Amino acid sequence: MYDIFEIRKDFPVLDNVIYLDSAATTQTPVQVVSAINDYFYKYSGSYGRGAHRLARESTNHYEDSREKVAGFLNVESSKTIMTKNATESINIVALGMGWNSGDHIVTTSLEHHSNLLPWMNLKDCGVDVTVVSPDDTGIVNPDDIYDSITERTRLVAVTHVSNIFGSVQDIKQITRISHKNGAMVLIDGAQSVGHFPVDVGSIGCDFFAASGHKGLLGPQGTGILYVKEPENLDPSYFGGGMVHSVTTSGFDIEPCPTKFESGTPNIPGVIGLGKGVEYVHDLGISNIEKHEKSLVKDMASKLSEMPYVEIYGPEDRSGVVPFNIAGLNSHDVAMILDETKGICVRSGHHCAMPALQALNVDGAVRASVGLYNTQEEIDTFIDAVSQITSLVG
Amino acid sequence: MYDIFEIRKDFPVLDNVIYLDSAATTQTPVQVVSAINDYFYKYSGSYGRGAHRLARESTNHYEDSREKVAGFLNVESSKTIMTKNATESINIVALGMGWNSGDHIVTTSLEHHSNLLPWMNLKDCGVDVTVVSPDDTGIVNPDDIYDSITERTRLVAVTHVSNIFGSVQDIKQITRISHKNGAMVLIDGAQSVGHFPVDVGSIGCDFFAASGHKGLLGPQGTGILYVKEPENLDPSYFGGGMVHSVTTSGFDIEPCPTKFESGTPNIPGVIGLGKGVEYVHDLGISNIEKHEKSLVKDMASKLSEMPYVEIYGPEDRSGVVPFNIAGLNSHDVAMILDETKGICVRSGHHCAMPALQALNVDGAVRASVGLYNTQEEIDTFIDAVSQITSLVG
Repeated sequence: MYDIFEIRKDFPVLDNVIYLDSAATTQTPVQVVSAINDYFYKYSGSYGRGAHRLARESTNHYEDSREKVAGFLNVESSKTIMTKNATESINIVALGMGWNSGDHIVTTSLEHHSNLLPWMNLKDCGVDVTVVSPDDTGIVNPDDIYDSITERTRLVAVTHVSNIFGSVQDIKQITRISHKNGAMVLIDGAQSVGHFPVDVGSIGCDFFAASGHKGLLGPQGTGILYVKEPENLDPSYFGGGMVHSVTTSGFDIEPCPTKFESGTPNIPGVIGLGKGVEYVHDLGISNIEKHEKSLVKDMASKLSEMPYVEIYGPEDRSGVVPFNIAGLNSHDVAMILDETKGICVRSGHHCAMPALQALNVDGAVRASVGLYNTQEEIDTFIDAVSQITSLVG
Repeated sequence: MYDIFEIRKDFPVLDNVIYLDSAATTQTPVQVVSAINDYFYKYSGSYGRGAHRLARESTNHYEDSREKVAGFLNVESSKTIMTKNATESINIVALGMGWNSGDHIVTTSLEHHSNLLPWMNLKDCGVDVTVVSPDDTGIVNPDDIYDSITERTRLVAVTHVSNIFGSVQDIKQITRISHKNGAMVLIDGAQSVGHFPVDVGSIGCDFFAASGHKGLLGPQGTGILYVKEPENLDPSYFGGGMVHSVTTSGFDIEPCPTKFESGTPNIPGVIGLGKGVEYVHDLGISNIEKHEKSLVKDMASKLSEMPYVEIYGPEDRSGVVPFNIAGLNSHDVAMILDETKGICVRSGHHCAMPALQALNVDGAVRASVGLYNTQEEIDTFIDAVSQITSLVG
């Protein structure tokens, strides 16, 4: 059973604020922090780098986390790379595919900068980038992707859930038509995993990038990259731990995931992430989805009925409600919510400027929910927004 | 006063083992773990990404850590980049300098793989790499660097302290002659910072890379890169947080350090690192140096008197003593030390294969000290090695 009051005991910060910024980063449960403390206080050692007991125990816990993450996404752990954040995950793909002049990438104007800039940056190498526009509610039509694919298209890079609109894309269909036309597919799952069931294996995409510190409740400093055919992707960083032999004239690289994890990794972070995934799993991803959807639906419906309030995105949405109040700057609205009621929402461009430019707005207030939010918090939030609108009128 | 018994109370893991692997990673003091817990339990929020109180407090703590790190190294915080590890720090330089065919790099065979592979990998872009050899004790003669510099040399990349030999390089002189001949200088400070005074500003190098989780007592998942002229270094990863404007046709990048820190950073890790630097500062870096040098000197002198034991490196060394016992594999020695006495040492190639190849050995046992080790621990270690040698005889 989904006991929200029991759940909230695991997130001490929630005693102080109404936290509606989980799309930026979620709060971290005590179970995750305890796992990190156990690492530091009981067995802290280096990863994969020593025969002694601490190094072995640290390595075992780290690899156990990788297994949990891979299992949760339904992919092979040997193809699951632990990164610093979803941004690094995507950049590893952008730097590792070996581009030629004339290669073509399709992406969308809906993307977070982290799934847009790495591709735009390849223009310097002669790579062409087509940016497909979604409809007014933030939904990308797979046919528009199809129409943009040429015989030079090597990659289609699309978000699973828009971090601004909460719109969920038909990534199975996008993957299908891209593959049919010879293009590989990267899905940015930063806003999807941990919020509803995501079976990466059955989506069939070539790359799946996600944050560790959002729906999966891991600490900041963790991210995930799944690569279907890692032998075809080159590492972009080189260093300790990724090679099995080095001479002054050359070196041989280990297979995935080792080849992508040079240097001492974020061992406590990855161990914490494993515990976060366990927490989500134990709570039940469908329970989480149901709870979050109910809050978001209520929030969106009440906001949309308010005078002077414009909300964006589709009716059926995941986790996120963006809106503006007529005549007010989004940062001012966020500030008032914080100062008057201790409500934490995001404001501004949300690292997705082109998505907002299409709406002809500079920014928006974004309220986003986590598995720990309550209906009472949503009610307080709605009241607070209502009070702000009464000042406008 | 340097009260080792008080200090040890801050490192709970030390109750269980004799930890002589600080060159791989140091243990983390409770003050650092407490700072991380405070972040998670009191004010966890995203970095630089929101107007609300949690985001502001998290950002303030993060930037405060950057100030502490920069102050400790005596460099500008605006040129101090927080990375995942020293490996990432060095790779950011390797990917960001914009190489041309025929460019030349000078490095040494003493380097950790993380300061060797990133340069060797550039051979594919037509970059020539000269690998200078140190003497038998692991000291690089600056004259040999000088002799290797050509008019095409753009970078000299050298370690400060060898992770195998503990040999300290004359990096001031190396920097001076490199600059005089038009080459930039990168110093790998992974094994130096936190072990003795390192004034990066007065060294004058162009790049200084370091781990956060070694001498500075931060958590794993943290690293540092100082860049003297960041406007001349391009970022290699692109994404959220590093730009001030984006359209579907282009983007404008923020100045350093922001441009190198795209994506949600390791906020708890960086906050912990700041506390680690504070811990080292409060203890006094000269006190730490004196304590560690005394332990290492004693250890090296006793090992070198033992039959069947060969030790490597110079007389005057920092932190690290590598050795072998005749007829025994280094991993077996490490395993016996662990199983019989709970002594944690590193064995094998230490991610610096070329340095060992020069000695005609496959691997070595490496005992390395931290600010928390005691003379009694060294005595126990020496007794244990002595017992192993008696089996060989």
